[in-house]
Amino acid sequence: MTLIGYDRVSLHNGFWQDIRAKNAGISLKNIYRRFAETGRFAALRCEKQEKPSHIFYDSDVAKWLEAAAYLQREFPDKEVGAVIDDTVRTIVKNQLPCGYFNSYYQVYKPDRIFMERMEHELYCAGHLIEAAVALDECGVNAELLPAMRKYADYIYERFYVRRDTGFTTCGHPEIELALVRLYEHTGEEKYLTLAKFFLDERGVRAEEIYPWMDREYDQSHKPVRQQREAVGHSVRALYLYIAMADVGRLTQDEALIDTCRALFSDIVRSKLYITGGAGSGWYGERFTVPYDLPNAEAYAETCASIALAFFCDRLAKAGNSAQYHAAIERALYNNILAGESADGKAFYYVNPLEADRQYAQYANTVPGIPFKPLLERVEVFDCSCCPPNLVRLFARVGGFAYGEEDGVLFVNQYISSDVSACGIDLSLKTELPYAGNVTISANGKGRLALRIPVWQMSLTCRVNGEYVRPEEKDDYLYFDVNGKAQIEVNFEMRPRFVYANERVRADSGRKAVEYGPFVLCAEQVDNGGELYGIEIPSLEHAVTERTQQGICVRVPARRLRSGDALYSYLPPEKESFTLTLIPYFMWANRGKNDMQVWFL
Amino acid sequence: MTLIGYDRVSLHNGFWQDIRAKNAGISLKNIYRRFAETGRFAALRCEKQEKPSHIFYDSDVAKWLEAAAYLQREFPDKEVGAVIDDTVRTIVKNQLPCGYFNSYYQVYKPDRIFMERMEHELYCAGHLIEAAVALDECGVNAELLPAMRKYADYIYERFYVRRDTGFTTCGHPEIELALVRLYEHTGEEKYLTLAKFFLDERGVRAEEIYPWMDREYDQSHKPVRQQREAVGHSVRALYLYIAMADVGRLTQDEALIDTCRALFSDIVRSKLYITGGAGSGWYGERFTVPYDLPNAEAYAETCASIALAFFCDRLAKAGNSAQYHAAIERALYNNILAGESADGKAFYYVNPLEADRQYAQYANTVPGIPFKPLLERVEVFDCSCCPPNLVRLFARVGGFAYGEEDGVLFVNQYISSDVSACGIDLSLKTELPYAGNVTISANGKGRLALRIPVWQMSLTCRVNGEYVRPEEKDDYLYFDVNGKAQIEVNFEMRPRFVYANERVRADSGRKAVEYGPFVLCAEQVDNGGELYGIEIPSLEHAVTERTQQGICVRVPARRLRSGDALYSYLPPEKESFTLTLIPYFMWANRGKNDMQVWFL
Repeated sequence: MTLIGYDRVSLHNGFWQDIRAKNAGISLKNIYRRFAETGRFAALRCEKQEKPSHIFYDSDVAKWLEAAAYLQREFPDKEVGAVIDDTVRTIVKNQLPCGYFNSYYQVYKPDRIFMERMEHELYCAGHLIEAAVALDECGVNAELLPAMRKYADYIYERFYVRRDTGFTTCGHPEIELALVRLYEHTGEEKYLTLAKFFLDERGVRAEEIYPWMDREYDQSHKPVRQQREAVGHSVRALYLYIAMADVGRLTQDEALIDTCRALFSDIVRSKLYITGGAGSGWYGERFTVPYDLPNAEAYAETCASIALAFFCDRLAKAGNSAQYHAAIERALYNNILAGESADGKAFYYVNPLEADRQYAQYANTVPGIPFKPLLERVEVFDCSCCPPNLVRLFARVGGFAYGEEDGVLFVNQYISSDVSACGIDLSLKTELPYAGNVTISANGKGRLALRIPVWQMSLTCRVNGEYVRPEEKDDYLYFDVNGKAQIEVNFEMRPRFVYANERVRADSGRKAVEYGPFVLCAEQVDNGGELYGIEIPSLEHAVTERTQQGICVRVPARRLRSGDALYSYLPPEKESFTLTLIPYFMWANRGKNDMQVWFL
Repeated sequence: MTLIGYDRVSLHNGFWQDIRAKNAGISLKNIYRRFAETGRFAALRCEKQEKPSHIFYDSDVAKWLEAAAYLQREFPDKEVGAVIDDTVRTIVKNQLPCGYFNSYYQVYKPDRIFMERMEHELYCAGHLIEAAVALDECGVNAELLPAMRKYADYIYERFYVRRDTGFTTCGHPEIELALVRLYEHTGEEKYLTLAKFFLDERGVRAEEIYPWMDREYDQSHKPVRQQREAVGHSVRALYLYIAMADVGRLTQDEALIDTCRALFSDIVRSKLYITGGAGSGWYGERFTVPYDLPNAEAYAETCASIALAFFCDRLAKAGNSAQYHAAIERALYNNILAGESADGKAFYYVNPLEADRQYAQYANTVPGIPFKPLLERVEVFDCSCCPPNLVRLFARVGGFAYGEEDGVLFVNQYISSDVSACGIDLSLKTELPYAGNVTISANGKGRLALRIPVWQMSLTCRVNGEYVRPEEKDDYLYFDVNGKAQIEVNFEMRPRFVYANERVRADSGRKAVEYGPFVLCAEQVDNGGELYGIEIPSLEHAVTERTQQGICVRVPARRLRSGDALYSYLPPEKESFTLTLIPYFMWANRGKNDMQVWFL
């Protein structure tokens, strides 16, 4: 399936456009301010700083540039434009004559350029390349692209032609997918060749790895085509898989695509949180073993979910299946959205499914405890990959909505927007994600396919006011359009129980509640503390309201009550009360809070 | 209550005597062999070793000596006797003229003696003092006692009289309780004075602590009389509390005793595993926050449960209550017994309530993961405090059985044995812990009180064959003895559900099964894997059998079955099967195994 790029989709006001506008008005500037305050922009001047810059500061700025590119196209802002131009000029000015640019290596380790595999050099290069493509694509700045092409050419020369570098593949994948993007934007074959080279060379020999880490950590434990299980650092893994799917598609390498499908399957069958979070282990920010999905200690990094969404997008391009869009939807409306605060200023890196203030207070007080639960989002992290990654994803969210294949226009995500493709001008309006009604005004001659969301309880369709029963195939509804048509589909949206596989030890015997694409959660601010022992016997009498938190579901529930004894031969008593649930992504916006997703 | 010492209780053959005999024949020698192989005995020669000895090697040997003392009294063994004498000679020979002895400081840091608070010097001294008392008390060796008195006198001189040391209180409590024991054995007041001094000085000023640790860690965060919550390293905490209860009793310090009662209450109400394990946090081997009792990641160090049993014993001495003996029973038959393998050769330091082979394999493969689940016991640890601690506890287990107060002979634990006290010669026979029948042959004139175990479902009593309804007060049954009497009590023992307080997030909505004093568990070897999703609807049809594992309970149960999907809108199906449960302490004796205590 050819996916229709974000640049061909015009969003209407609504859920996503509100977020994008907030990101343009607040988040982008706030991230800029915090990045500037922490020296990330100054580092690009390639001068020694009092506090040495971090090895991947360049990538933070690059992701900010990329996000800014998409947003400037639609929400132009002079101040942001000036920062972009100034930043690009600084990079170009300090680029070495050979094309190389890395603000850390040029200043602190000029003699170690391309010698240290684990130090994120090509990772930074990849993000700069992505930024350059985005700036050019959006017509925001044309100067970075030639500079980054020169850099890519230099990487090609050193890694592929001369092969005189201290390592062959980068310890943090990203360059591979960036090179594919550069290839697709410029048509220059050598970038695809280099991307494929980096994939082919990965895991074929023992290369440098952190001394405290195993080779699974950065997916260099075996050749990529033999990797059938998602292992190691989850962002590294998923960035790699994105490039594998891309190169597989572009080189018609069925083995590579098949590997990607196996990896996807491994993730969604045993390693994915119900929120679309991937990589459960805080140690190494990584995939662990099947069904190991702890709730309070969940890592579920925001960037990993973002990468998962992009991986699914690439899988769909390599051969569509509705399940890829269902996975994008799960990640997008839950783990990913949770990454940003309601006010757009603060961010989560880690996305737990359970929070306990008392334990968090303890873990944050005892200095050496390695995993520190964070009960409120923060404006910047030392490792601050997630904030600009979120903004760049939201800015191009329209790119997830539509695809075309065999002349059919596919609607994969329901986002209020206009698009023209496959002979149809389409305007889609929906209350999604808060209600299941979708109204499509179509004009033209062609065929339309609408994805049936996994969460719908039933559906009705009307065409020009008449109830119809459209053709249904592989989780899409098909409509023929001839002239002007109004297609109204209603996907019934009600709170539903979801059960985890009993092999998931953290959730066995428990259930979560979903409402449409949202996983719901209970917060202490609405329900009082002690959220572990809450039983929801039925959702029959659940009431859904639109509120400040988007929606809220109130449902009769029971709280276990054991009294003072720690253990008792008598079962706990049950106290009836009304449980209030809100979308998971809205948690932690009202102060420090206990929170719970799984119930009895 | 005056507790009747282990040396006044003669055990009959039976559950505990079998363990003690096994410990004498196998465990003691095997620990000696492993300690010798790892250089622990050689270190006492105070010569530089190729591999420097550990700072607390002396304490390992001391606990071995103490265990050996108790066992030699009853199971004399020439070989062991020779090791004892030789070891004592080595210590005495290398003791400094001033009385000081520490094999690590004398060799590696002679200029830092009594300067480093966190390096276990007085902790080692305390264990050597305990060993000296035990060897003397058991008539096994009389040479160590005068040497250790001299050492204690030197500690008194330096810490209490001259106060010229680099710290005031030791970073690992133990010396305090050892000094009380030395005082009680010798009658020398200054040892009690010094013990009290160490308690009084604790937490009153900022003393050295590990730089990575908070002051709660070693209970130096506030004066001991203000410590109402159990915090920090659990073994440190409980060793301290033992001395607090002792000193409180011996100096009639009601405030101190009251503090100990508050600490006990805090532990049993919110920080105790159902197995009697204390200190749930692996980081810092410590108490965390109330109700934080994770199962798979449970620390529950064997030594902490041993210390808890001793703390309860001291609380009973300071003012009896049946709850102290109930807590001893819980710890003894579960967490503590689990510390030693069925063959007596291997030991657990950490005692989880859930084990998963797949996760354990992962955690043990990835080098940096800090918490490594151990699915089989091992012969020796780098920090090998638990093995000799277990043997010394089992060797004196008879000391938990009886007490006397106001002329009444109390039976606190049911251990087949003879004792004479309060004008009664008593011989007790029981099938406990496997069946609830107790037969007491008493002769003399006096009053007898039998503790009613918390787990009994009903009880019957016969005196000389006649059913009687004895006086019952504060969880004891009272009997008057006049002449010869045969008292038969049967405590009905059946599998019972136990429920955790719903605030325990790991167990909320789950239940465990107890049988008599045992907590039961399911192992994969009996039940297949996937033990998380097992539901036990009822125990009505449970069948209990005597087996190799002591007992086993078979009960109709249901296994949740979800198929392949990770999440589903349909609840899992339920598959009926017969669940096999064994006593928790017997787990991990049949190879690497999944294990589970809490069920749906």
